[in-house]
Amino acid sequence: MNEAVSQKLQVGIVGVSGYSGMELARILSSHPVFALALVTTDKWQGQRLGDCLPVAGAAAELACVPHSEGQGRFGELDVVFLCTPSEVSISLAPIAVAAGTRVVDLSGGFRLAAADYPVWYGFAHGNPRLLAEAVYSMPEVTDSAAKLRAAKLVSNPGCYPTASVFSVLPLLRAGLIEPDPIFIDAKSGTTGGGRKAAEDWSFSEVSDDLRAYRILRHQHQPEIERALALGGAPGAKVTFTPHLLPMRRGILATAYCRLRPGLADAAGAVKQVLADFAADKPFVRIVAPEAVRLQAAVGTNRVVMGAAVEPARGVVVALAAIDNLVKGAAGQAVQNANLMFGLAETTGLLAFAGHMP
Amino acid sequence: MNEAVSQKLQVGIVGVSGYSGMELARILSSHPVFALALVTTDKWQGQRLGDCLPVAGAAAELACVPHSEGQGRFGELDVVFLCTPSEVSISLAPIAVAAGTRVVDLSGGFRLAAADYPVWYGFAHGNPRLLAEAVYSMPEVTDSAAKLRAAKLVSNPGCYPTASVFSVLPLLRAGLIEPDPIFIDAKSGTTGGGRKAAEDWSFSEVSDDLRAYRILRHQHQPEIERALALGGAPGAKVTFTPHLLPMRRGILATAYCRLRPGLADAAGAVKQVLADFAADKPFVRIVAPEAVRLQAAVGTNRVVMGAAVEPARGVVVALAAIDNLVKGAAGQAVQNANLMFGLAETTGLLAFAGHMP
Amino acid sequence: MNEAVSQKLQVGIVGVSGYSGMELARILSSHPVFALALVTTDKWQGQRLGDCLPVAGAAAELACVPHSEGQGRFGELDVVFLCTPSEVSISLAPIAVAAGTRVVDLSGGFRLAAADYPVWYGFAHGNPRLLAEAVYSMPEVTDSAAKLRAAKLVSNPGCYPTASVFSVLPLLRAGLIEPDPIFIDAKSGTTGGGRKAAEDWSFSEVSDDLRAYRILRHQHQPEIERALALGGAPGAKVTFTPHLLPMRRGILATAYCRLRPGLADAAGAVKQVLADFAADKPFVRIVAPEAVRLQAAVGTNRVVMGAAVEPARGVVVALAAIDNLVKGAAGQAVQNANLMFGLAETTGLLAFAGHMP
Amino acid sequence: MNEAVSQKLQVGIVGVSGYSGMELARILSSHPVFALALVTTDKWQGQRLGDCLPVAGAAAELACVPHSEGQGRFGELDVVFLCTPSEVSISLAPIAVAAGTRVVDLSGGFRLAAADYPVWYGFAHGNPRLLAEAVYSMPEVTDSAAKLRAAKLVSNPGCYPTASVFSVLPLLRAGLIEPDPIFIDAKSGTTGGGRKAAEDWSFSEVSDDLRAYRILRHQHQPEIERALALGGAPGAKVTFTPHLLPMRRGILATAYCRLRPGLADAAGAVKQVLADFAADKPFVRIVAPEAVRLQAAVGTNRVVMGAAVEPARGVVVALAAIDNLVKGAAGQAVQNANLMFGLAETTGLLAFAGHMP
Repeated sequence: MNEAVSQKLQVGIVGVSGYSGMELARILSSHPVFALALVTTDKWQGQRLGDCLPVAGAAAELACVPHSEGQGRFGELDVVFLCTPSEVSISLAPIAVAAGTRVVDLSGGFRLAAADYPVWYGFAHGNPRLLAEAVYSMPEVTDSAAKLRAAKLVSNPGCYPTASVFSVLPLLRAGLIEPDPIFIDAKSGTTGGGRKAAEDWSFSEVSDDLRAYRILRHQHQPEIERALALGGAPGAKVTFTPHLLPMRRGILATAYCRLRPGLADAAGAVKQVLADFAADKPFVRIVAPEAVRLQAAVGTNRVVMGAAVEPARGVVVALAAIDNLVKGAAGQAVQNANLMFGLAETTGLLAFAGHMP
Repeated sequence: MNEAVSQKLQVGIVGVSGYSGMELARILSSHPVFALALVTTDKWQGQRLGDCLPVAGAAAELACVPHSEGQGRFGELDVVFLCTPSEVSISLAPIAVAAGTRVVDLSGGFRLAAADYPVWYGFAHGNPRLLAEAVYSMPEVTDSAAKLRAAKLVSNPGCYPTASVFSVLPLLRAGLIEPDPIFIDAKSGTTGGGRKAAEDWSFSEVSDDLRAYRILRHQHQPEIERALALGGAPGAKVTFTPHLLPMRRGILATAYCRLRPGLADAAGAVKQVLADFAADKPFVRIVAPEAVRLQAAVGTNRVVMGAAVEPARGVVVALAAIDNLVKGAAGQAVQNANLMFGLAETTGLLAFAGHMP
Repeated sequence: MNEAVSQKLQVGIVGVSGYSGMELARILSSHPVFALALVTTDKWQGQRLGDCLPVAGAAAELACVPHSEGQGRFGELDVVFLCTPSEVSISLAPIAVAAGTRVVDLSGGFRLAAADYPVWYGFAHGNPRLLAEAVYSMPEVTDSAAKLRAAKLVSNPGCYPTASVFSVLPLLRAGLIEPDPIFIDAKSGTTGGGRKAAEDWSFSEVSDDLRAYRILRHQHQPEIERALALGGAPGAKVTFTPHLLPMRRGILATAYCRLRPGLADAAGAVKQVLADFAADKPFVRIVAPEAVRLQAAVGTNRVVMGAAVEPARGVVVALAAIDNLVKGAAGQAVQNANLMFGLAETTGLLAFAGHMP
Repeated sequence: MNEAVSQKLQVGIVGVSGYSGMELARILSSHPVFALALVTTDKWQGQRLGDCLPVAGAAAELACVPHSEGQGRFGELDVVFLCTPSEVSISLAPIAVAAGTRVVDLSGGFRLAAADYPVWYGFAHGNPRLLAEAVYSMPEVTDSAAKLRAAKLVSNPGCYPTASVFSVLPLLRAGLIEPDPIFIDAKSGTTGGGRKAAEDWSFSEVSDDLRAYRILRHQHQPEIERALALGGAPGAKVTFTPHLLPMRRGILATAYCRLRPGLADAAGAVKQVLADFAADKPFVRIVAPEAVRLQAAVGTNRVVMGAAVEPARGVVVALAAIDNLVKGAAGQAVQNANLMFGLAETTGLLAFAGHMP
């Protein structure tokens, strides 16, 4: 290992062959401070990472190791990213923590209170003690930079919660909209569901189609409410309805809210609140509501946001677009890791990735 | 003309080269009672219809005539379908009526009250007298069969209003949901916008994208409220938000509503109301809410509907899927024309058109 | 059973829940002479067909029966369509024939000579005697109407061979192009591969992609050469390369050929030969080569064809487009069945199915 | 301007709002040696580049200037990239050269011999003297590094020629395939055609479709033959047929060739030749022919290549996949510019852009 690399922080990805893991590898292979030192996947085991993904440089020379081998090497790392199913993350996170390695978990394994797991995930949480220590962090929302500096285990938010929370949080915090009911209609590309060998996810079934799924019972609904509470908007009652789009990437959340009564200049207030929210946030971009579109967000770590107001009817339509694999997964995970190590949150995240507005 | 054809009703299509006109030609070329006798389009003028569309039989032999010639021949027809922009329809409809020909207008030219045109369409209506005589008909909703028998001019509903109205009307009529606010998040394929030579509608701009448009100012919002009123649910306040999908056909409307308080068994009541609504309606199909998908509706004149209820939160998510060119345009137009001439409403509309559930 | 139905020919579909089976159900439910009397599928067993597909009328009332039950009832049918994997068809066809029921097999089970099965399908043919009796029929090509009248077992061509053979057969027959080499570059939608529960066929993997597959080893290559021979062009050497398109339906075959040397007016000759070929064929449509496009064929039983000639270089580019599920499967199967029972080949096949040119 | 920036080379993009221009902006905004100093476009004139594209850093602060203003400022630049129509490039290039600014032209304006322009581009070349000085450079093919160091005007290859030439050049150079005929069937995403406000390019017309266009008359055919000659394979006779895919990005070229007779181990020889070709080329990646797919190339500057051989029939199927906007346009342009200034050709081009294999 040459000196330049040895001075970098050593990072690992568990599950590099999944869509989030691949996106992490893309981002980390160009990161100026983190150096990929371990990538695990049973699928590509024994292959050079550069033969599996178009990464260049040192990362290309890494050999993919099977999961069973990888977890014995967590101690070599400064931080490990878990791109694994929730129950696997719940098993792996304590192994990493015990090895003195910090963890960013991209699964749902550490996102809710323990009592919520049987209801929303269908299993009892296996490690409520560690869950209580986990820091759930959506940096612009949860004001978590200080906690991140000390965190052993960071729970990275879900893709739908990220888009949903941004769409309404500034308006809730400012008291411009009623907290109950809030209806969020979200539409996602297919990579949000991970790799699938299922007829329902086959091209012939998903193409030319659109449908809602897990209506009123998606595990991201309680996460949205929890993240809003952490972000300073407790008590919101969100009805969340996801739809599966026939495209690979991107989430658009359209939120339907009621204006608080008695506002003098609701449209002006909404505009000002959004501008203030974005002011110091490099990844937040406010645009006209009809310019909130997937092509403006995909390939970036940005949240593209806007809102329309109809004072006469007392309604607000608030929209947010993200790339489900970047701001909704790997990008936000790197943003959190940057803050864990005292780096600028934008480190390695400003190069955009090819999709055009 | 042979005797079989001469006994059929003679019908015409103005604007056969648009997407609705083409779909009408498809349906009418196999219709057992209507015979295509006139098709107008400047685009294909002088060509055989069978060289422009894969229609067979007598319809294939029709010569496409320019609009200017077509309007002089309305008197030869029993009924003419206008697949024209709203302002053109407003000019053409009186010409047909004066020639003694009945009209089904597929544009927005006769759908709202005259006073609404400047606000929502941006022009003053040029023929308020004829507008007052027009019969707006969404047959399952407006109970218009009797009026259609006598109608000279029938205003065929818009595609978004059709999906939107079906999604919530049964629940409103039965008093299960609050009439204000109702939020309808609608997603449509691109053919709903007609043929376009615009960069914004180019493949490179629409593909991999999703965006809302005409938020809070789409001309279909007042039409939805008017159709609900005609259908027995006056006073509803609908916030309607359309989104452009990167696919050609289909509309999915997802409606977000509040349950009326105090219902004993809301889920059971919703289920029963939907079943009762569908009971005698050959084109209405009730399915589980997660089975309401575009592939189940596209290629048919069906409305595929369902609803999910969360009594604890007091919310209902009601969905409806249609083919924007069939039930949302040409199919419903033929359904209306069938009723105008005393035919069964399903005449010529039961063969489905190739998309699979 | 009412008299009208009893006078119709009774037909069955084995495998109605596959894509070809569903398309057959669509076509047959509107057919004036064939009446669906049996549909088998384990997937939908016990359900009404009308609850699984948007078919109307009597067909909607049919109960889907499991395969095991269906094969005991073949004797009730005049003809059964097998939409089953090749090896299953090889087992089922003799059962039907023994029951006195005629068979149209849509699989590859009876398309090649027995000796070719180990090489191209990977198994020895289990019933070479019946294979020898099977009539392979692509009606416009194989001039098989007379044989069909007497056939017990008809082998329906593959989707790729249909498009490929049409593209070059007229030119080969007329001696305008060299028989060796012919390169056919074919591109197909995903439904040609059937229902798939495989990661490689998932939406995320197929969308935004294009790739060739089974290069130089696809089982349709020998079928193309055999069909050309049956069609009057023996000895052609075809290199066939299929590509998987990110869309559901349609095949475009682009064939690259060398002009025979010494032709005086090659372009004129090609044009004339194509016109002559199409003259008496209701499903063949000759257009300019750049108008050979999927939108002109999908939803119909048509072959849309054309060719471009460059005499100076001595090359011909010949194109054919079809709907892989209609002319490439279910439509051609009904065309064959029509001829088996002495009906016009177009019976029930002229209504087009919703896609527009 | 701070010192770090002032030490960078100053570069400009003429036509930054087109698809190639946008991709150039993406690449250059992260380039370690080139600094964007001028971007022109009438479409976005007066806006910050960062408000139009998700570029970060200093590039985001650039104001877009109208073309008329931009051409007066060429003298401030070390190199200017012309993303303009061919005739515009022919007018602008001499202005830049006269100002002492080096030029990389992405149009077709300097790619063919002067005599070919009337035939293939439909106009007489306006500046044959400058054309004679232009260096056409596809670096891995034309061995042009030395010429680039001195070049005033570099002609960047077309997207189709890039994919096409790579697919067959190594085999031609090694004498493994016959030079006549070579058939190249190419399929491209829509961004290759640029921004379009035309009905034929609208989403409704392109989606669900596939068609060949400009058959036997595409201006890239002579460019392919010229590039092959420059690359050491003179005399090849290529029949080039482009097809328009319903997707935004990517080109797959499938080449059909005849093996030279008498080769002992053709398959082995092809494999070796491809491996040797790739050996020292960081952007060339050889894979199994069925692994040559768009998802492996899009978002990178790579050419992903492979070939299949059928010795018995004497045929080779050779494939190459690229991203039409990266290796087919902006990426190759930066690669050329790197070489013009003595940088490693990979400078700024190794970060991949989000699409995954």
